[in-house]
Amino acid sequence: MNIGSFAATPEPPYYAVIFTSLRNDDDAVGYDEAAQRMLELAAEQPGFVGVESVRAADGFGVTISYWESEAAISAWKHHVEHTAVRDHGRTGWYEHFEIRVAKVERAYSGPRAER
Amino acid sequence: MNIGSFAATPEPPYYAVIFTSLRNDDDAVGYDEAAQRMLELAAEQPGFVGVESVRAADGFGVTISYWESEAAISAWKHHVEHTAVRDHGRTGWYEHFEIRVAKVERAYSGPRAER
Repeated sequence: MNIGSFAATPEPPYYAVIFTSLRNDDDAVGYDEAAQRMLELAAEQPGFVGVESVRAADGFGVTISYWESEAAISAWKHHVEHTAVRDHGRTGWYEHFEIRVAKVERAYSGPRAER
Repeated sequence: MNIGSFAATPEPPYYAVIFTSLRNDDDAVGYDEAAQRMLELAAEQPGFVGVESVRAADGFGVTISYWESEAAISAWKHHVEHTAVRDHGRTGWYEHFEIRVAKVERAYSGPRAER
C-alpha cells in the first residue's frame, strides 16, 4: 500500500469512510508514526479494500478508506489498537475532523472516453 | 467556498462524488484557472452542498463534492461548460483519475466524544 496512490477497488457496491481533517501543529513525529501504523493495521483487516490519502502543507487532509461491507467498517472501528490511538488522536492531533460513511454505487476512471 | 476547508453538509443521506486524481506536469496555469472556475460554477448549481479538496505537492489529490441528490449530480455532469472543460481535462491534465459516486449514510465530527 502506497500513500499518494490510487486504491484498487472492485466493482461497486462497496463502502467508503471519508475522513477529512485539519491537523494542529502538535506532535508531528508521533502523529506520522501513528498514522502510518494505522494504515498498515487497517490493511490487515478483513474486508479492507484500499485507501487514498492526501494532506496539504496547510494541514488539511483527506483520507478515504474503502471496505467491502459495513460489518468490516464496524469491526475496524472497534479494533482495540485503533480505538486507543483514535481516542488519543481525537483531541491531540486535530483541530477538527469530519467522518462520513458512504456506499459507493458506481465508479469509473480515466483518462479515456467516459463509459 | 474556501479550498482547504470543510464542507458544511446536512444530516445524511446525501451524495458524494469522490474524484481522486494524479496531475501530470502540464499546463499548471490553465489547470488552476479551470479548477477554480469549476468549483465556482459547481457551487452555483441546484443541489450543490459543498466541496472538500486537497492536493499534495506530488500531484496526487482528492476532491469530494457533496450533493443533495443523484439528480443534482447528473445535472452537473451534463452542464455544458463543465462538460467542455472535462473533455479537455481528461486527457490534458491528468495521468489518471478515479471517480466514485457514493451515498453518504452517516456522519460525525470531532474532536469530541463519539456519538
